[in-house]
Amino acid sequence: MLRCIEKKQRGKELTAQEIDRIIAGFTAGDVPDYQMAALLMAIYYQGLSDGETTALTKALLASGDRWDFPDEFHPVLDKHSTGGVGDKTSLLMVPMLAAAGYRVPKMSGRGLAHTGGTIDKLESIPGFCAELTRAEALRQLSEVGCVIMSQSEGLVPAEKKLYALRDVTGTVPPPGLIISSILSKKLASGATHIIIDVKHGSGAFFASESEARAFAEKLVSVSRNFRPKVAAAITAMDQPLGNSVGNALEVAEVIRIADERDTESEVSRLCIGLGGALLKLAGEAESREQGEGILAQTIANGKARDKLYAFIRAQKGDIEAFVRAMDDLERKTRVVKVTAQSAGQIARLDALSIAQFSHRQGAGRTRQGEPINPWVGVVLHKKTGDTVAPGDLLAEAYARPDCDENAVEKEVRGAFTIRKQATAPKLLNTIIHG
Amino acid sequence: MLRCIEKKQRGKELTAQEIDRIIAGFTAGDVPDYQMAALLMAIYYQGLSDGETTALTKALLASGDRWDFPDEFHPVLDKHSTGGVGDKTSLLMVPMLAAAGYRVPKMSGRGLAHTGGTIDKLESIPGFCAELTRAEALRQLSEVGCVIMSQSEGLVPAEKKLYALRDVTGTVPPPGLIISSILSKKLASGATHIIIDVKHGSGAFFASESEARAFAEKLVSVSRNFRPKVAAAITAMDQPLGNSVGNALEVAEVIRIADERDTESEVSRLCIGLGGALLKLAGEAESREQGEGILAQTIANGKARDKLYAFIRAQKGDIEAFVRAMDDLERKTRVVKVTAQSAGQIARLDALSIAQFSHRQGAGRTRQGEPINPWVGVVLHKKTGDTVAPGDLLAEAYARPDCDENAVEKEVRGAFTIRKQATAPKLLNTIIHG
Repeated sequence: MLRCIEKKQRGKELTAQEIDRIIAGFTAGDVPDYQMAALLMAIYYQGLSDGETTALTKALLASGDRWDFPDEFHPVLDKHSTGGVGDKTSLLMVPMLAAAGYRVPKMSGRGLAHTGGTIDKLESIPGFCAELTRAEALRQLSEVGCVIMSQSEGLVPAEKKLYALRDVTGTVPPPGLIISSILSKKLASGATHIIIDVKHGSGAFFASESEARAFAEKLVSVSRNFRPKVAAAITAMDQPLGNSVGNALEVAEVIRIADERDTESEVSRLCIGLGGALLKLAGEAESREQGEGILAQTIANGKARDKLYAFIRAQKGDIEAFVRAMDDLERKTRVVKVTAQSAGQIARLDALSIAQFSHRQGAGRTRQGEPINPWVGVVLHKKTGDTVAPGDLLAEAYARPDCDENAVEKEVRGAFTIRKQATAPKLLNTIIHG
Repeated sequence: MLRCIEKKQRGKELTAQEIDRIIAGFTAGDVPDYQMAALLMAIYYQGLSDGETTALTKALLASGDRWDFPDEFHPVLDKHSTGGVGDKTSLLMVPMLAAAGYRVPKMSGRGLAHTGGTIDKLESIPGFCAELTRAEALRQLSEVGCVIMSQSEGLVPAEKKLYALRDVTGTVPPPGLIISSILSKKLASGATHIIIDVKHGSGAFFASESEARAFAEKLVSVSRNFRPKVAAAITAMDQPLGNSVGNALEVAEVIRIADERDTESEVSRLCIGLGGALLKLAGEAESREQGEGILAQTIANGKARDKLYAFIRAQKGDIEAFVRAMDDLERKTRVVKVTAQSAGQIARLDALSIAQFSHRQGAGRTRQGEPINPWVGVVLHKKTGDTVAPGDLLAEAYARPDCDENAVEKEVRGAFTIRKQATAPKLLNTIIHG
């Protein structure tokens, strides 16, 4: 192991055999955490080649079970996002794909971001259960077509152990480590076609589009060494996605979009764009545009709404109780209205500021296992490019009942920059096909 | 801790308070090894400033006892070497300084180099005891003036723990870590004036003179933040020092030099040079040259020999038994004579090759606690700059009894490069005063 650390330290490439032995030893407890931590930090500076990333992905995959699905389920679709503010894409896109007739066994996490992960969001629905056995997941895939569940215990245990160590040693960032982490989890869960949404901007892991593009290209390049087909989308995350940030607030936004059959909302447009690319990747559409048409139709004809309700109910979620709880939000939070102080257009709506505010209100966690507050967050009434007059409502903050209203107002207003003129940003930049 | 790792990772400077907390936490077991390993690897790439190195030295010092000596012992002298091949300087220089009337409480190690450390070398003398209590060391300093002993248990425990981790994580090299390790140990052992021999070349830790110089300058600069005075010498280590490499062989070389009152041997000249600089540093000589004169005199008048014998005997070493054992060396090892195959001058005598050969014969250890073979090694009959004719004896290898003689001969001969003309190298380049 010391020889491998020193090899990587000097910028040399590790062989697949060396990586296999390291991961097997680490999983078995023969490679101590301190040597793995030293290697991870050397990787932080020296990176991992595509070959090393492929070998690491395979080694992580080999550490646990691997799901696969009967032929009649194929193509089995999945999506992943590198994370963004107000990113509720999975909540809408998964039932859309199921409404179009595909199987979508999505595994998701509770996350350590500014708000909870997809599972946390769904758990703001009373009764919702994310812990499914494989048999339960299979039955739901047969009956409903989609499931959104916690990652199954037996899948890629080495990835879990490695991530826990990266998390406390400052070694989450290296692209090769992130790619092998994403791919090993996605490949283990049995999808045949996967789209990865790589986000860049203020509220994203990647600061710039060029970083996101380099990451996406490496990811797709590495994925070519595996049987499932992978495409990557590069999308902007300078402002929060859609009109809400928070846990319950984001679920409510998706329910509203589905109920109103709103194909034009920002969230709908992103889901249609990503889904269109995924259907093209799977050979189910001749072009991305054709795939987009199929998916827009699922919103327009109400079938996406039906699948959304069906999968939530199949997982014991009580949507009516959730709607009642949302009607009562003013008793769970302090609602602070934030208005414009000048006229012009919104030139910037900073995703990170909104995220940090929401986190401080309790929407996210700092340590694993911490409880989160499902009710707090921000509803956005204006977004980048919108025209405003003084006094117009910019946002409503759903803050902790014990908050300082003036501070909340100031903080949320600070996320908005109003100028004479501004243009709305492009959301989805590029798709990189595997 | 994670915040500190990420700070260093980005190349930012840690505060003295942060370093204090890290080392206190690490010593107490609150900072886990894996986080310390990640930080060490970040330091490998980002380095430590003089301020950070000073803070780390202080934090290491604070982790244990600190010896000091009564005023009548002052100045208390010490020396340290960054390590070289055939480096038996301490064995001669310590009794020389004692012979000149100074107290020299030298703590030394068993080492993991190609041959053993100073303590290993002395332990080839039957009966020699390196484990002294503080009271025993004090008594011997009063009676004899010098002691060479293992590092006392209670001194800088954090350094010991940190070094053990560096050793298995590829993080021995960073200069700031080496400097804080050396300085904390030397400062804890109570010397008032210290000279550090920084070696460069094939058999040394530093490959080039410029690396050694940069290290020495940083070391002296950091040492200015402490009360004891420190000077650094920059010396060449392209060929082994003196005429022998091995454990018992090096002790025998020093006994011979002392017995023969040989002021001109390479080892004598280095000890005189380093010692002269040390006496100048301590204000005991007006110039380095004057200090050198004082120390050369101790060899010439036999007082260095008397102190050498006296301190070894005080530590229960049986010199007569050692001499008898050396007379019997041909039964403990296989002696292989290596002769020149061409005429010319020795252009190069590669220290690392001789060191690696000696290590393979059993002169050094690979893991802590491993036994070493005190008898094996190489006696050099020609050195760089010497003129040779075909058939002249270059060296005698004292190899393991089960060795392949032809392979030994070839390997040792391979360390010599003979050309038409060559010049003898300079040994001691520069002294950097604190």
